[in-house]
Amino acid sequence: MKKLINDPDDVVSEALLGIDAAHPELRVDHAQKVIYRAEPTRRGKVAIVSGGGSGHEPLHGGFVGLGMLDAACAGEVFTSPVPDQILAATQEVDGGAGVLHLVKNYTGDVMNFEMAAEMAAAAADVEVVSVVTDDDVAVQDSLYTAGRRGVGVTVLVEKIAGAAAEEGRDLAEVARVATEVNARGRSMGVALTPCTVPAAGKPGFTLADDEIEIGIGIHGEPGRRRAKLGTAKETAALLVDPILEDMPLDRGTRVIAFLNGLGGTPLIEQYLMYHEVSTLLEGRGIEIARSLVGSYITSLEMAGVTLTLLEVDDAMLSLWDAPVSTPGLRWGV
Amino acid sequence: MKKLINDPDDVVSEALLGIDAAHPELRVDHAQKVIYRAEPTRRGKVAIVSGGGSGHEPLHGGFVGLGMLDAACAGEVFTSPVPDQILAATQEVDGGAGVLHLVKNYTGDVMNFEMAAEMAAAAADVEVVSVVTDDDVAVQDSLYTAGRRGVGVTVLVEKIAGAAAEEGRDLAEVARVATEVNARGRSMGVALTPCTVPAAGKPGFTLADDEIEIGIGIHGEPGRRRAKLGTAKETAALLVDPILEDMPLDRGTRVIAFLNGLGGTPLIEQYLMYHEVSTLLEGRGIEIARSLVGSYITSLEMAGVTLTLLEVDDAMLSLWDAPVSTPGLRWGV
Repeated sequence: MKKLINDPDDVVSEALLGIDAAHPELRVDHAQKVIYRAEPTRRGKVAIVSGGGSGHEPLHGGFVGLGMLDAACAGEVFTSPVPDQILAATQEVDGGAGVLHLVKNYTGDVMNFEMAAEMAAAAADVEVVSVVTDDDVAVQDSLYTAGRRGVGVTVLVEKIAGAAAEEGRDLAEVARVATEVNARGRSMGVALTPCTVPAAGKPGFTLADDEIEIGIGIHGEPGRRRAKLGTAKETAALLVDPILEDMPLDRGTRVIAFLNGLGGTPLIEQYLMYHEVSTLLEGRGIEIARSLVGSYITSLEMAGVTLTLLEVDDAMLSLWDAPVSTPGLRWGV
Repeated sequence: MKKLINDPDDVVSEALLGIDAAHPELRVDHAQKVIYRAEPTRRGKVAIVSGGGSGHEPLHGGFVGLGMLDAACAGEVFTSPVPDQILAATQEVDGGAGVLHLVKNYTGDVMNFEMAAEMAAAAADVEVVSVVTDDDVAVQDSLYTAGRRGVGVTVLVEKIAGAAAEEGRDLAEVARVATEVNARGRSMGVALTPCTVPAAGKPGFTLADDEIEIGIGIHGEPGRRRAKLGTAKETAALLVDPILEDMPLDRGTRVIAFLNGLGGTPLIEQYLMYHEVSTLLEGRGIEIARSLVGSYITSLEMAGVTLTLLEVDDAMLSLWDAPVSTPGLRWGV
């Protein structure tokens, strides 16, 4: 294992020290491993809490800030945060208008966020609504999931629901927006190399020199199948086709196209892949209204990419375009 | 070689197609491989042109936009752009106030930018001033360089000189600012793994499983020495110490600390390393006035990080904080 770390057990807590030092606009509770905006929640604004296992940075901590999250709970690498963390965050950020939990669909996350929501309601009379993302078309159930896995759409949900909350919409409406984004989004990924969880010390799986895993999960969970690495054009089709089989889009449909690097794939390859994806979509008459290219939901140093397509209308685009100011995503401010 | 590409010969031109498709705020001349702002240069504004070999993304193309570059010339991977490209960019962006060339100190880049500057002066009466960055303290001469290599400070020069140009300062003054930033900045890097130039098809060097290259160049050029990979704390000292030996900083000095990922190192490790670096600086009484953590000047998929320290005063900080809107760096807009 070749990593810039000290003790594998301290990776998350030490990375949080770095985030704290680098971002005066954030506040980190190191005991609870929760990242907050430096400013408390505006009275009457719905607060949004997300979180999950670490190792997917900038998700979620990098999306705390104006127009996105109010708090992010960091679990150990690829391990759900515990209910106490989520409860602390939920109580801390409540501005009297309730709290939305955004949860990626993994068994541990769903269970722990649910427990925290119940504790928050009982202990502090905080109203919590949860929205679970499950956009990965690759597999139905998987190593850590009943149903589909929550992957790339989570970034888009955090942005768009975050904008709705910032506008002052109420909890039911912010949750409706989040649910709608998840329902209209689909993702598919491919891995070229595995990644190594620090505490494990060795790669989670192996791939031959010419082999890729199609439908990879963001923890290295198996996808649909393995295949020989082909051209970028061929690989792009392996991402676009399953998404459009699952969610057929009429000609003229507008989408946000999100081409995401998994951590070890450089930007030059991500842009090259984005070109192939956009060409395929154009060929099917699908209009890319907005795009996002970069490493936003990662799997440590895994090489590979994921594609997320989100069907959008004017209302959703207006929320997408709204100001956002976080370490990972920033515009309009 | 395991890369998301089609033909190795087409990597740069196809990545440019992706950049063009993803960024309506940019305009790409695909014949010349130059990335421009979509809007022409404001009359009377000094224009800034940079460029270099590809494979360092988001540098330089990702820094074209308000408050940074007016154009970026993309060479083949790790290969200087040719004079014709640079000449075309220089003529295109001149807004009547002259053009600043920002050039990383590599023999090919310096020569080709120089030739383009002469051609621009002769052919089109465009006034060009060049500033060469050479901030890498690792080695004096190297594989592609007479003198020191230009590395991380280039990002900071592009930002700060870009802000000076946006303010309407004249060419001599913008060049003075760029020169000052370079003079006050120092960098040092470390690699954990090599990278593979697509056209070469194999890694540029090899490292043992427990070995690092201290003082690596952004093209994989040899550094000072190889060593066993130690803890993050030890590695941070290998970056901080040579910089401060080269540029002693008094207690109370303010710096911009730029911890940069080389492409294959995930953000969680970058933040962990930033914590170690900031702790070391704090111990020496150096105040981090601003920080930047992320993969901004990369070496394809190389794992490793570089550290750049820039001594700043209020004037420089104000230029750093000024609005910037590019794919790679964005705030205040």
